[in-house]
Amino acid sequence: MATFFAANISTDSKEFLLSEEESKHCIRVLRYGLGSVLDIIDGKGNQFIGKIIDDHPKRCKLEISEVISHPKPDNFIHVAMAPTKNMDRVEWFLEKAVELGLSKLTFLKCENNERNSINKERLQKIAVSAMKQSKRYYLPEIQDLISFNQFVEANPNGYIGHCYEGEKINLTEIRNNAPFLIGPEGDFSKTEVAFALKNGYQAVHMSDYRLRTETAALTAVFGLLSI
Amino acid sequence: MATFFAANISTDSKEFLLSEEESKHCIRVLRYGLGSVLDIIDGKGNQFIGKIIDDHPKRCKLEISEVISHPKPDNFIHVAMAPTKNMDRVEWFLEKAVELGLSKLTFLKCENNERNSINKERLQKIAVSAMKQSKRYYLPEIQDLISFNQFVEANPNGYIGHCYEGEKINLTEIRNNAPFLIGPEGDFSKTEVAFALKNGYQAVHMSDYRLRTETAALTAVFGLLSI
Repeated sequence: MATFFAANISTDSKEFLLSEEESKHCIRVLRYGLGSVLDIIDGKGNQFIGKIIDDHPKRCKLEISEVISHPKPDNFIHVAMAPTKNMDRVEWFLEKAVELGLSKLTFLKCENNERNSINKERLQKIAVSAMKQSKRYYLPEIQDLISFNQFVEANPNGYIGHCYEGEKINLTEIRNNAPFLIGPEGDFSKTEVAFALKNGYQAVHMSDYRLRTETAALTAVFGLLSI
Repeated sequence: MATFFAANISTDSKEFLLSEEESKHCIRVLRYGLGSVLDIIDGKGNQFIGKIIDDHPKRCKLEISEVISHPKPDNFIHVAMAPTKNMDRVEWFLEKAVELGLSKLTFLKCENNERNSINKERLQKIAVSAMKQSKRYYLPEIQDLISFNQFVEANPNGYIGHCYEGEKINLTEIRNNAPFLIGPEGDFSKTEVAFALKNGYQAVHMSDYRLRTETAALTAVFGLLSI
């Protein structure tokens, strides 16, 4: 049974009209027709079972027969990272992180950033696709660029991965439900690290070797999942 | 100091000639000249410090002043996986896995494979680049396609990730120094799973959700690293 995403479907809907894009995909590409039964998810934990009652290729209409509410995962996995110069790297990270259970991704504007813009719409699409692929029901929140200091002040007490010397805890010691900060290609500045530590962040030892930004971010996800 | 890779350098070399490609990169691209000091690694744990004594752009010659031997990491991280239909996914996995400490990657010919060939030379280049980037000194071995049964018989007692029901241990329970089998997009066949179990493999619970092949392989690496 194919899964469709609709952010705007309501749990008391009896009928639902797929978007023009999803209708085309459903009727023209996947060749579903009148009476076919589909899965619709809203990214907020709800799964709708719907039957096609109008197979119009631009305005496919479904009758909703059942709504299933899936519980929210216990852990809250929040990574706040500098976008990489080459966005492919962030996109790969996002796909993997959603599969593994990312709850929220924030982009940070840091001193050493080589990029200070993201295409949020494109990232949303990747997140939706990874959510569907991995059979998850919650779409992670993607937060647009915010200055490092502003983020740290608004979200004190978390974890930071940096390459400078200093006291660091092990990845196995961290607990989830606190944000994990990952810096740009040139690392955080020393001023930024000091600012985070002053705001209750703990530095974490990520690897004995030098990790790329997106590999460090993925390591943070595995650490927060505490597998 | 830039790092160059040379598989054929010997620890008793007093002088060394960079390959034509590396010479060009060194002299034309990075603009090193007579007297510049470089790092050469052989992927077998040795690091050579060399000074340019002939800055010919096709036959750059170095005088070796020092050889440093780096100890082999304690853990042996061996993933044996089916190649993904789209090789980008394997390549991305390989880059990340080398950064994290992969020791050996074997490709498996499974019943449900959608691809039965790999470009080993291209994968080697990715591994060399990730080794240099992460400041590692050991190049993982890449083993060309081998039939599932043949591999399992030759390497009994390891771990297998599959999506069927059955007894599974947790990722936190595995120890390294045993191979981890990851299946193709359509999973291992039930016959293959049974064959592995008969040969001392233990099934491992990878995630509550459906992971792509390369995400499962990366999860195996994190599991074997037992972070």
